[in-house]
Amino acid sequence: MSVIYDRVALIGLGLIASSMFWAIKRAGIAGEVTGFARSDETRAIAREIGLCDRVCESAREACEGADLVVLCVPVCAMGDVAADISPVLKPGATVSDVGSVKRAVIDAVAPHIPDGVHFVPAHPLAGTEQSGPGSGFAELFDNRWCLIVPEPDSDEDAVTRLEAFWKALGSNTERMDADHHDLVLAVTSHTPHLIAYTMVGVADDLRRVTDSEVIKYSAAGFRDFTRIAASDPTMWRDVFLTNKEATLEILGRFTEELFALQRAIRTGDGDHLHEYFTHTRAIRRGIIEAGQDTDAPDFGRAPRGKR
Amino acid sequence: MSVIYDRVALIGLGLIASSMFWAIKRAGIAGEVTGFARSDETRAIAREIGLCDRVCESAREACEGADLVVLCVPVCAMGDVAADISPVLKPGATVSDVGSVKRAVIDAVAPHIPDGVHFVPAHPLAGTEQSGPGSGFAELFDNRWCLIVPEPDSDEDAVTRLEAFWKALGSNTERMDADHHDLVLAVTSHTPHLIAYTMVGVADDLRRVTDSEVIKYSAAGFRDFTRIAASDPTMWRDVFLTNKEATLEILGRFTEELFALQRAIRTGDGDHLHEYFTHTRAIRRGIIEAGQDTDAPDFGRAPRGKR
Repeated sequence: MSVIYDRVALIGLGLIASSMFWAIKRAGIAGEVTGFARSDETRAIAREIGLCDRVCESAREACEGADLVVLCVPVCAMGDVAADISPVLKPGATVSDVGSVKRAVIDAVAPHIPDGVHFVPAHPLAGTEQSGPGSGFAELFDNRWCLIVPEPDSDEDAVTRLEAFWKALGSNTERMDADHHDLVLAVTSHTPHLIAYTMVGVADDLRRVTDSEVIKYSAAGFRDFTRIAASDPTMWRDVFLTNKEATLEILGRFTEELFALQRAIRTGDGDHLHEYFTHTRAIRRGIIEAGQDTDAPDFGRAPRGKR
Repeated sequence: MSVIYDRVALIGLGLIASSMFWAIKRAGIAGEVTGFARSDETRAIAREIGLCDRVCESAREACEGADLVVLCVPVCAMGDVAADISPVLKPGATVSDVGSVKRAVIDAVAPHIPDGVHFVPAHPLAGTEQSGPGSGFAELFDNRWCLIVPEPDSDEDAVTRLEAFWKALGSNTERMDADHHDLVLAVTSHTPHLIAYTMVGVADDLRRVTDSEVIKYSAAGFRDFTRIAASDPTMWRDVFLTNKEATLEILGRFTEELFALQRAIRTGDGDHLHEYFTHTRAIRRGIIEAGQDTDAPDFGRAPRGKR
């Protein structure tokens, strides 16, 4: 594949940025990839494992001369980083991000983008419960969606080029309006994460009663919740602080439905429960058909010797 | 390995029973395994795929002469099956089950166990979102817990033998009191499943608004919920109907915690959120250390070429 951006700068070197680096290298679509992380330790690890062609000592140094700058920091940190790098951004360059919330990022970053620099927000729908510079792998974005969230006045060439970049990293891309993005993600990602965090917290509270049995005997349902609830705390704090309205709206609907099921349990209404559970099963099939997951047994844990 | 039970009868041929059959064959611990399922279609599939040495036309026929009978039907069906097979149970035989709730099963089954037959309830903590006779695989129980729930007057030899049986299927075993079992499972499995069902139901409601985007762009959190919510509806209906008290208690605590987090979001209390999310992360580590899961990235989806 040919080079899409001569110089790419990755600001923040966690799971997403490190996966992007390995995927960029796999695809051969950038001349040089620079990187910066605020923490000395992260930069040291990055240098040790060969993450980025050049690890810089400041965000500005990393962004100087870059054709694409990708902000890979928690949502609430985006504005400060944008203000910092603003003076060194190259005319004609594109600034993008990978934040899980888009309206708040646009509000924070757009004011710092100089004339002649393109701002094209994006959100790759991919992740694991791991974090940090060592957690990335080139295949993270393969066959996953990357939502491109241009502003109404975004430069079409800049948008198309960013789409080509994400496709080269393995993703499918689609354009979406920022507010709509935030609502869809509140349903599919933000509220589920909050619920998983809550359930794991409840279990931990109970653990005092049941002497660590909750962990020892954690069955499928709870194990999956703990995976979700192990995700990066700073990233998720910022998500809930910045996508407040949509998350609270979905939480309201969730509580309503939960109370209806709770009543069915209390009154012994087995038909209601069975009907509800049958219905949700069909949704799973839709997700598999949409190519967003496999139907491999045991929640993706490969049964040894059967694949 | 040598034979532990000369004749084993599996009543109900879904995910658990079919996995037990393949694991029994792998271990070589039974002379003959008979099987029965109520549905003609299930019995036909079982015969077609070689599930069970002999598929019988009635539960009684399958249980005649069996040294171990394992009830692998939904919890609410256990009592009827026990009443049906009661007259043909062999003196000295053991009756067990694999139900996710134990107190209700004991109440329903114990009255039908004749003198001289041992009843030793059990619950293998293993499963996938798949169901039916074709969904089983020999490795399902490997390194998972099987909780053995003897009654106070259970025959010690019968209990020890059943423990040896489950160990031969790959499980670790531990004994637990029935009521305690039901509380622990309400926390680790039953309530998480109900919550996942609820969230998936909410998303489906929203889908009408967002034109299938909820499925198309379902990110990690929601994808895992749909896996959980795709589990067998009948099995789960019965779980909630029969473990009502413990589930409702845990649901009450869950709602309390959720409301506290909801308020933190509404008031913008980032410290509270960050502290909570950091705390839940530690629980995940406990689970990995307890050997109940791996820390493979992306919720167990193997990153291609990295393992």
